[in-house]
Amino acid sequence: MTVIDSDLARYCDAHENDYVDELISWVAIPSISANPAHREDVRRCCERLVERMRGIGLRAEVLETDGNPLAYGEWMNAPGKPAVLLYGHYDVQPADPEELWHSPPFQAQVRDGNIYGRGTVDDKGQVLMHLAAIEAHLRVRGSLPVNVKVVVEGEEEIGSPNFEKALATYEDRFRADLAVISDTAVYAEDTPSLTTSIRGLVHWEIAVRGPSGDLHSGYFGGLVKNPIEALAQIIAQLKDDAGRVAVPGFYDGVDDLDPRALDELRALAFDEKKEAETLGVPALGGERDRMPLERQWFRPTLECNGIWGGYQGPGSKTIIPSVAYAKISARLVGRQEPGRVKEALTQFVQCIAPPGVRVEIHTGGDTRAVVTSREHPAVAAAARAMEAGFGKPPVFIGTGGTIGPVSSFDRILGLPQVLIGVGLPDDRIHAPNEKFTLSQFFGGIKTMCALYDELAR
Amino acid sequence: MTVIDSDLARYCDAHENDYVDELISWVAIPSISANPAHREDVRRCCERLVERMRGIGLRAEVLETDGNPLAYGEWMNAPGKPAVLLYGHYDVQPADPEELWHSPPFQAQVRDGNIYGRGTVDDKGQVLMHLAAIEAHLRVRGSLPVNVKVVVEGEEEIGSPNFEKALATYEDRFRADLAVISDTAVYAEDTPSLTTSIRGLVHWEIAVRGPSGDLHSGYFGGLVKNPIEALAQIIAQLKDDAGRVAVPGFYDGVDDLDPRALDELRALAFDEKKEAETLGVPALGGERDRMPLERQWFRPTLECNGIWGGYQGPGSKTIIPSVAYAKISARLVGRQEPGRVKEALTQFVQCIAPPGVRVEIHTGGDTRAVVTSREHPAVAAAARAMEAGFGKPPVFIGTGGTIGPVSSFDRILGLPQVLIGVGLPDDRIHAPNEKFTLSQFFGGIKTMCALYDELAR
Repeated sequence: MTVIDSDLARYCDAHENDYVDELISWVAIPSISANPAHREDVRRCCERLVERMRGIGLRAEVLETDGNPLAYGEWMNAPGKPAVLLYGHYDVQPADPEELWHSPPFQAQVRDGNIYGRGTVDDKGQVLMHLAAIEAHLRVRGSLPVNVKVVVEGEEEIGSPNFEKALATYEDRFRADLAVISDTAVYAEDTPSLTTSIRGLVHWEIAVRGPSGDLHSGYFGGLVKNPIEALAQIIAQLKDDAGRVAVPGFYDGVDDLDPRALDELRALAFDEKKEAETLGVPALGGERDRMPLERQWFRPTLECNGIWGGYQGPGSKTIIPSVAYAKISARLVGRQEPGRVKEALTQFVQCIAPPGVRVEIHTGGDTRAVVTSREHPAVAAAARAMEAGFGKPPVFIGTGGTIGPVSSFDRILGLPQVLIGVGLPDDRIHAPNEKFTLSQFFGGIKTMCALYDELAR
Repeated sequence: MTVIDSDLARYCDAHENDYVDELISWVAIPSISANPAHREDVRRCCERLVERMRGIGLRAEVLETDGNPLAYGEWMNAPGKPAVLLYGHYDVQPADPEELWHSPPFQAQVRDGNIYGRGTVDDKGQVLMHLAAIEAHLRVRGSLPVNVKVVVEGEEEIGSPNFEKALATYEDRFRADLAVISDTAVYAEDTPSLTTSIRGLVHWEIAVRGPSGDLHSGYFGGLVKNPIEALAQIIAQLKDDAGRVAVPGFYDGVDDLDPRALDELRALAFDEKKEAETLGVPALGGERDRMPLERQWFRPTLECNGIWGGYQGPGSKTIIPSVAYAKISARLVGRQEPGRVKEALTQFVQCIAPPGVRVEIHTGGDTRAVVTSREHPAVAAAARAMEAGFGKPPVFIGTGGTIGPVSSFDRILGLPQVLIGVGLPDDRIHAPNEKFTLSQFFGGIKTMCALYDELAR
């Protein structure tokens, strides 16, 4: 069993109160990227991080972008050793509705082994794990076993709109052998986990146009095709009775899980009935004959995110509307090509569109899925580090979500990636009463201490 | 050929300018029932009508209701002759957008043989036809050949919410042998027409509920049934590929047209291509294998009037929404029972609702279709009157719309009804630049003069 260097462990144990105090001070800066009123808080948070990295001993700077700046710091004094790019974000989600918080969102509070506050786990606390681990190495040994480049973004919560351009602008800063991302969760508190796949994302907006204006449903009912009806017929044909997407070519690049991966999924506790109760649905949905975790992590999805058309107010208005709209998105897996998926659905929708209406489709989004081979030595190193930090080897899991920068590292920099996060599924990220469980926080710091050693092997 | 009594005709011809002046003065009162700011105008308009009826020689009064008052007048001095209830409405639609009017909506203006203004044809001008015809009879002959009861409503444009209660409250005033409604249009300017069927109307609102809150489409996509998708699948199953409603029992009480009626429809000019162009659709829709006019007038319809759920703003929001809604309504024909139709669709929707969601359905509306037998002597009398007024026997047509009071007269009073209106299809009722073509107006007055004589036979 891999264990953490005992000097490093002692150092970390001795500084737990400091880590908590520091996280409280970071949370106190409401760096909400979605709200322009907080632009100065966002910048202040970035500057605070840069200052802190300098204090630890990194060469650090604020990197300006077309949006919020990046906090950047590097320590490159391990010649012949790999350069590891550490990614996280310092911006946070809005805290509303604030009245649902049990303690003020920006005055972090420790209760019952957790620290509550906006950004505690997503992602300030997980960024702090790395700075704490780097500091431990430098204080205890005077050096790091690998070269590190720390990149902390300020626009992750709004979709990283300026990140790819920054990758190009600061190409030299991002040059590395490996990326480590700490912005994910483990499967359960007693189940350390490494995420080896992230889904991609594409978008469509469909407009179904009928008559040039809303029509009286009495005088014209029976004479024209209703655009809402046409849109419903289109959406209904996007999946077959088994819940499988019916668009030809949609599954190109999607592989079935191999028996070992399926066995691993079966080994993870999953109570369908309890999950349905938690979500408030009478039964779970999705593709028939696929396990829930397979559907959540390893299968592509097609979801209607919004629909509207005609009269939506109180009472009734007997019209045949002129137009109906839907927003649709797909999560991608494996080797699915975003461009080809977008085109496949666009063509299919035009093909099945009923007569009597005109269909317009606009597409957006171009985020590829990312899959990390668990055979990669860096993933093996991360697994050993997690065992050192949490006393138990990790399981390998996927995530159904999409992390834009991960896709950018993969596509633009071509970097192998390790997704090593320690949040818990009940941390309520993006919701009131977000928390970071302290045992996960402290175990995460030790994991990162071990990670740098393991990556140096 | 039926012709109008020459004394009456001369009287009407001599007073054409007076009729136009009087209509201008009525239009000048903006009796918009939908806008509470015009409540006093509505009442003023009602009082003006009552005053005018008294001036003609009717016993007239304002009848209070729970909403806007009715203008009521009667002349019951023809013992042994039928009592004819004449129905119209003095309230009008709002005039917005006013900037699209070529002359001010409430300052009626004569141009090129038409009088333009809000309410000119819907329905003030058509109410005036009756008062003018009654006045002609009384001035020329000193009496009417039948008893008349004139009821002019002030809430037709907002769905006659208080009319049925008023029918009960003023039961004696409404007691009659026959109802004559002048609030419809002819098929075309050179085609006098009598409407012998009006469609009924029922409503549903469907809510499809999934998870208790909106879910992240990444973390939960593939795990739950999307309520929008479920709603689309429900709507798509409401009709078959031929455009026929697929709800069992929906067509109970719907008869196919007999060969003579079909021949009559074929004889009416209808240019499908031109109609599609006018409506702005690439092709007409509706039930396959049914003629357009049959679909518009004599077949029931099922239309989605509105749909909404999930994110409808700019850009994208990758959620699985908690709930999706649709407003649906059906136009009914023949002997379709509103209550049974509502129940049939409700049961069908619950039956086809996919697993993983909960479906709630609320119903509203209870307006039965009305069909007048053209064999009824009153309809034959109206046909002769129209021939007298327009020099050509009328064709028999239907209307796809619904007139609540007509259904009330049918169901509550059990009265035979004659729908005799003289508007033109291009009168732009409810829209800017509403007009009444003067030749239709004057022909209508003569038609009503003849109608009373014909009904007395």
